[in-house]
Amino acid sequence: MLPRAVLFDAYGTLFDVYSVGLLAEQLYPGHGERLAQLWRDKQIEYTRLVSMSGRYRPFWELTRAGLRFAARRLGLELPLEAEDRLMNQYRHLSAFPENRAVLAELRARDVRAGILSNGDPEMLAVAVKSAGLTELLDPVLSVHATRRYKTDPAAYALGPAALGLDPRQILFVSSNGWDAIGATWYGYTTLWVNRGNLPLEELEVTPTRIGSSLRDVLDFFPT
Amino acid sequence: MLPRAVLFDAYGTLFDVYSVGLLAEQLYPGHGERLAQLWRDKQIEYTRLVSMSGRYRPFWELTRAGLRFAARRLGLELPLEAEDRLMNQYRHLSAFPENRAVLAELRARDVRAGILSNGDPEMLAVAVKSAGLTELLDPVLSVHATRRYKTDPAAYALGPAALGLDPRQILFVSSNGWDAIGATWYGYTTLWVNRGNLPLEELEVTPTRIGSSLRDVLDFFPT
Repeated sequence: MLPRAVLFDAYGTLFDVYSVGLLAEQLYPGHGERLAQLWRDKQIEYTRLVSMSGRYRPFWELTRAGLRFAARRLGLELPLEAEDRLMNQYRHLSAFPENRAVLAELRARDVRAGILSNGDPEMLAVAVKSAGLTELLDPVLSVHATRRYKTDPAAYALGPAALGLDPRQILFVSSNGWDAIGATWYGYTTLWVNRGNLPLEELEVTPTRIGSSLRDVLDFFPT
Repeated sequence: MLPRAVLFDAYGTLFDVYSVGLLAEQLYPGHGERLAQLWRDKQIEYTRLVSMSGRYRPFWELTRAGLRFAARRLGLELPLEAEDRLMNQYRHLSAFPENRAVLAELRARDVRAGILSNGDPEMLAVAVKSAGLTELLDPVLSVHATRRYKTDPAAYALGPAALGLDPRQILFVSSNGWDAIGATWYGYTTLWVNRGNLPLEELEVTPTRIGSSLRDVLDFFPT
């Protein structure tokens, strides 16, 4: 069965979460990459801890918390001005260069394309708008409504509910291996855009397909 | 209110999960520490992913899966013999040197002391026995019964149920910051044995006390 619509993960998939590394490197020469990596890891870890414990807090707050932890872990001073600059950069992440063409082509092929993200609604609205993709993405779904982060099934359930489709009829696209796996477990047709050329998680589950760029989405929707 | 009993986390708290690093370094000179670290991180990540997704698998399996991923991620060949040697080492982790004296002193003070661990029952039985601590630890509780890993409240709930005490009357001890925090959220009195001198997680919650060795447990139970 071919899918009939697409839902994209946002952070890491449409938006380059490591693009903050440039500013981080300016602020902390020699430590930018490590800071960006640890920040990202901690942000994700925090989504899992609060979700498992039933202690939801919005993604923006956890992103800030992750940054603070990462800086302390690396022994870097983080004055409020630096924190605000990095957080502001996170609000306006670079979009991957192929996004626009792929989204436009999906539109041309009459395929509905939206977002299903851990980001809270305001973050997502700003990110989509500042990337100039507002007209090409609908719906923009945030897990905020469920107070559960991916990979909780309650979070993935937002997609089928909003689109009125069976999960198998929806292509869920993520560059985060764990997210592609969670979505596969949930029942979506899935594409893992393995930008980092990482090994597959050893969890005895494989995404429907594995690709290397957002362009691989188009193979699911032949003209 | 002073606590009346103690529950210890096992892996990282009573047993040194990085003691496998020595064998890893023998097998992969120059990569042992990195392999041990990534193995541990992945093992924990997998507990969260399967728990959040309602796809429980026993800790032993996830430990093996984490090892396989870590080796692949680092580009290290992992023939079955090396895998079995590392896994066997994990079954017989070194106990921290102060454990026995602390547990014996708790016994002398008439304080019941047990384990509440992500490990599955067989792993725990072997670890406790090979460390020679069988007589000093009761009960040995595994989250296996709940099919939810810590920090899921269902996992922490095993302690009060087994001991017939309110969570606040139980001192939960962990060297894993996230575990100390999860237990604090749940309602335990908590001690984070911060062996690695790490920053506190930035989650707006603080364990009851923070210490540096298992000996700090004894301060909760004055003679």
